[in-house]
Amino acid sequence: MNTDLMINRGIIKYNGNAFEEIDDVIANEYPLTIIVDGDEFATMVCTPDHLDELVIGFLASEGIIRAIEDIAALSINEDRGFAYVELVQKQTMSKDFFSKRFIGSCCGKSRQFYLHNDVKTAKTFMKQIEISVSQCFNLMTKMQEQSTAFQLTGGLHNASLCTKDQVLLSRSDIGRHNALDKIYGYCLKNKLSITDMMIAFSGRISSEVLLKVSKIGVGIVLSKSAPTTLAVNLANDLGITAIGFVRGQSLNVYSHPERIVS
Amino acid sequence: MNTDLMINRGIIKYNGNAFEEIDDVIANEYPLTIIVDGDEFATMVCTPDHLDELVIGFLASEGIIRAIEDIAALSINEDRGFAYVELVQKQTMSKDFFSKRFIGSCCGKSRQFYLHNDVKTAKTFMKQIEISVSQCFNLMTKMQEQSTAFQLTGGLHNASLCTKDQVLLSRSDIGRHNALDKIYGYCLKNKLSITDMMIAFSGRISSEVLLKVSKIGVGIVLSKSAPTTLAVNLANDLGITAIGFVRGQSLNVYSHPERIVS
Repeated sequence: MNTDLMINRGIIKYNGNAFEEIDDVIANEYPLTIIVDGDEFATMVCTPDHLDELVIGFLASEGIIRAIEDIAALSINEDRGFAYVELVQKQTMSKDFFSKRFIGSCCGKSRQFYLHNDVKTAKTFMKQIEISVSQCFNLMTKMQEQSTAFQLTGGLHNASLCTKDQVLLSRSDIGRHNALDKIYGYCLKNKLSITDMMIAFSGRISSEVLLKVSKIGVGIVLSKSAPTTLAVNLANDLGITAIGFVRGQSLNVYSHPERIVS
Repeated sequence: MNTDLMINRGIIKYNGNAFEEIDDVIANEYPLTIIVDGDEFATMVCTPDHLDELVIGFLASEGIIRAIEDIAALSINEDRGFAYVELVQKQTMSKDFFSKRFIGSCCGKSRQFYLHNDVKTAKTFMKQIEISVSQCFNLMTKMQEQSTAFQLTGGLHNASLCTKDQVLLSRSDIGRHNALDKIYGYCLKNKLSITDMMIAFSGRISSEVLLKVSKIGVGIVLSKSAPTTLAVNLANDLGITAIGFVRGQSLNVYSHPERIVS
């Protein structure tokens, strides 16, 4: 399987008045199947870079591991598109259980969650950190500057792990959750302390994105795009400041505005 | 659970030089759990309209049903977010099997990536139909005009089922696959013959989107956005004309250009 990030293809372009054959650059989409202790756990399609981080972040996000030490061995066969994981402690819980719907009480915080796995892995962010609006604009600009492949192919999502003033790490993927899992995997692999950090993201803030941010352990998420209601509810419950539509000199704060200063 | 498509929320907006509290409209994200013959089959998050079509299209896309007659009963509890399906013939295959990776031979068509479910449900499109570039531009404009909720919230994807000259049916969803499943469900429920039709879509053409289009049985897909390599490979194999970056008076044809006339 081809592991380039972008692949050249001959396409036919119509440009106002005529067809022409041109060479174009297309985002590569790569299937990766994760085998955990000999069993097929999941198949995802992704952008084929940082595959070890993707696997680590995905397994943590799914509640299968909590720390890098929970993995006894990880190997990736890039040609075939398979990742082989051995856990230190074999899974005892059925894989199905994690994706079962969690029905909480009718009122109170647990109402927002919908899968058992999320109840187990989402973390409430308690710390009082602050960021100014100009720092928000600056981080979003920097995140976008780093997304070369997106500018070429129009097909990737980008996520950056940032301090208030700089981008520490950027990851791209055709799947928006994958970009966040790659960041999560990097943090776990390198035992990075992520208090005081934030995530800048190119895509919408859905409930899944918000939950990933919470699992990573970050308290502020910035996006140039829109949030959903479920994401805003979860952000309120989990102590996360969700900032959307960061464009030009304007932004919207959807939850926990106490962290934003002008 | 709230089944409105959009929900009003108070947010804090920074607009160049000051914060203000304003009312904003946010896309609702709604969890729906599908129970098939008493077992929890899947939980998805979606935009809560046309839920019956979504369930029917999703089950067909997953290979659980082939026609509407395979469903003995379908009821939806909107307050709780549950859909209850009874099949005429109980499922004998393990649910897990459908999401297992299908490894074909090393060369030839089966080389492309599929899950077992896709091998079973994707259809090769054989018919020679034609569409002109001006018809493509026209359909894309019409599809976008119908997406009011997207314009308000910035958070929805839109899909339209079209003839060469008009949009027959449009569906929106926070999940791009859901918008296509709603269209699929509508077609099955109403036993619509869809030969000669095409789909106009607001999102990227990933492999999953391309496979959905193939399962629905449509031969041309139009998008204002980019495709991925895997989608282009699958489109070539499955006889589907994939057209991307339909913007203004320009478009790119990625596969089976014989159907496009100027």
